[in-house]
Amino acid sequence: MSRVEPSATTGELVRVDVDALRSSLTTIFEALDVPAGDAAIVADGLVLAESRGVTTHGVANLAPRYAGWIEEGLANPRPAHRVTRGASALMNVDGDGGLGIVVAARVMDDVAERAADTGIAMATVHNSRHLAMAAFHAMRALDHDMIGVCTTAVAPAMVPTFGSEPRLGTNPIAVAVPAGEEPAFVFDAATTTVAVNKLRLKQRAGEPAPAGWIVDADGEPVREPAVPEPPFRLSPLGGTPEASSYKGYGLAAIVDILGAVLSQATFGQRLETWQASHTLTAIDIDAVQPIDEFRTAMDAYLRMLKSTPPAPGHEEVLVAGQREHRALQASLAEGVPLPSAAVEWVAERGRRHGLTLPRLEHT
Amino acid sequence: MSRVEPSATTGELVRVDVDALRSSLTTIFEALDVPAGDAAIVADGLVLAESRGVTTHGVANLAPRYAGWIEEGLANPRPAHRVTRGASALMNVDGDGGLGIVVAARVMDDVAERAADTGIAMATVHNSRHLAMAAFHAMRALDHDMIGVCTTAVAPAMVPTFGSEPRLGTNPIAVAVPAGEEPAFVFDAATTTVAVNKLRLKQRAGEPAPAGWIVDADGEPVREPAVPEPPFRLSPLGGTPEASSYKGYGLAAIVDILGAVLSQATFGQRLETWQASHTLTAIDIDAVQPIDEFRTAMDAYLRMLKSTPPAPGHEEVLVAGQREHRALQASLAEGVPLPSAAVEWVAERGRRHGLTLPRLEHT
Repeated sequence: MSRVEPSATTGELVRVDVDALRSSLTTIFEALDVPAGDAAIVADGLVLAESRGVTTHGVANLAPRYAGWIEEGLANPRPAHRVTRGASALMNVDGDGGLGIVVAARVMDDVAERAADTGIAMATVHNSRHLAMAAFHAMRALDHDMIGVCTTAVAPAMVPTFGSEPRLGTNPIAVAVPAGEEPAFVFDAATTTVAVNKLRLKQRAGEPAPAGWIVDADGEPVREPAVPEPPFRLSPLGGTPEASSYKGYGLAAIVDILGAVLSQATFGQRLETWQASHTLTAIDIDAVQPIDEFRTAMDAYLRMLKSTPPAPGHEEVLVAGQREHRALQASLAEGVPLPSAAVEWVAERGRRHGLTLPRLEHT
Repeated sequence: MSRVEPSATTGELVRVDVDALRSSLTTIFEALDVPAGDAAIVADGLVLAESRGVTTHGVANLAPRYAGWIEEGLANPRPAHRVTRGASALMNVDGDGGLGIVVAARVMDDVAERAADTGIAMATVHNSRHLAMAAFHAMRALDHDMIGVCTTAVAPAMVPTFGSEPRLGTNPIAVAVPAGEEPAFVFDAATTTVAVNKLRLKQRAGEPAPAGWIVDADGEPVREPAVPEPPFRLSPLGGTPEASSYKGYGLAAIVDILGAVLSQATFGQRLETWQASHTLTAIDIDAVQPIDEFRTAMDAYLRMLKSTPPAPGHEEVLVAGQREHRALQASLAEGVPLPSAAVEWVAERGRRHGLTLPRLEHT
């Protein structure tokens, strides 16, 4: 029987100091035999997601599972990823069964280093695990003044258009682009209409899910709002065939192909929920345009979108990553809102491993 | 006043010989001062689209316009595209104002040549024109045993989520992946819910467009089926905010950023309908995996998707490009169905330029 710990997403929200949370998680994962540098990556990625309001991919939902995977032997705490075959700007990487959040981050650093020479570099990664928030890895390219792209192929949840059972994952696509005065453009979206967690929230609240989120047990799109019941069968982005769900289906297949098929990984129904393959791509802007000119042009582009007159009932037109950037600023200033179960999980882990952890509460 | 010729999409469908049509178009574009090799590319791309059933991007809809653009001076018939800045695997290309169908095809050939050395190569292209069917360019990579990616940023038609006026193009994404015994995987989709042409067809037929295709003059999504009236304001893929239209909006922005912003091209409302910027990427599979093994794995992947039990009322689950592959086989065997106005346009061009053209009708 699996001893993997469940998520810690319940309870009142407590405002927690971002640095203290990151430090605590680093110490906990070090106690689980993860090397210090890798443990810091786990902490960075999960705290960044929680701080940006992406709670599905943050500390409360994922830290207990990742700890459990290591203890269960489902993830290698000390992976040594290596290139199995490649050229100067493209490589196939064996993730050595490490936590995807560590493997993908390390590989993004590798491809950024290559791209500084070649202009663009991409890695396809097999033998890895769930990588948490895809945007975390795409955003690592920003530190290099590069555009970062991260996709990950995961276990089936999406029903193909005209099909009746899940055959593809939620397979997200993340793209991060540096700007100048504007916050970076950070896109991160599942290729399903919505992520599983949004359905869980609706189910728990007894609220109807909008049309186009799911298909029924026969594969028929649910076209009227209805309270969803598990097992959830997710619609590809588009929602229904008449609203082009084949596009979301095709995008998910591309993520499978570039991650799993190209890297010679397992795909489809043979994948376990903790397994994943990825692609990481870095594009060195300065190779094709002086970076300062690009930053200015990106500011102009983003402001062009943000200045779109809003539709009635809406205050503003947003760009990708803007909402999350605001959440991050608030988390840094006022503490990140963390469910009390997660605060308790950190404390319990501290006791179990005999660790001295900083006080979490934001003051 | 513009003398640009309108499309030739009206009239009965006539079965036309694919080779004769290609030969005729090559000759016509040569008469318009397009070099022979480039004229053959124009013919290849437009006939391939028409033959695959992608009539929006085929001979009838686009050949008269492209001819008109050349005669109007809106497109350079003899472009000499050149790299303005780049590294070994990434380049910024000036399209010299040529027809996009020529420029993008030539640049795909260039990046494939680079990728044979570097594993992956990408070009961002400015000063180009409408490139016709994006899949045509992605599919050129198949001849090199490579994965091809083509995106193109075009004039605004998409209304951003929560906005009230068009600020982004239909900005399609095309990806072509070779397989073994199965036909190649060929994805090609606008990042809007549907292309403009589907709305025109509904309007002409007086038929209601499904929910999620368009927004009204205020920017409010049209949530009930309604006969559309121009000017059409397209919804991003997803259709409505509650069905994640911000994802289609974000994908369209990525296409703008990688095509227009990265290449220092014009973007947004300053773009004319004939202008476009592109990205072309080639991924050399053999750099990371023996090509024969990849072909076998792709066959297995595609068959896994196609073997999904269909939902009631549907005969089969398709994969991207499958329907178009069948149309192509039928066109090759029985002739491509071409509107009589297009057949007449070819004949009239032949008379105008004093050309001897082959008989078009399939026998």
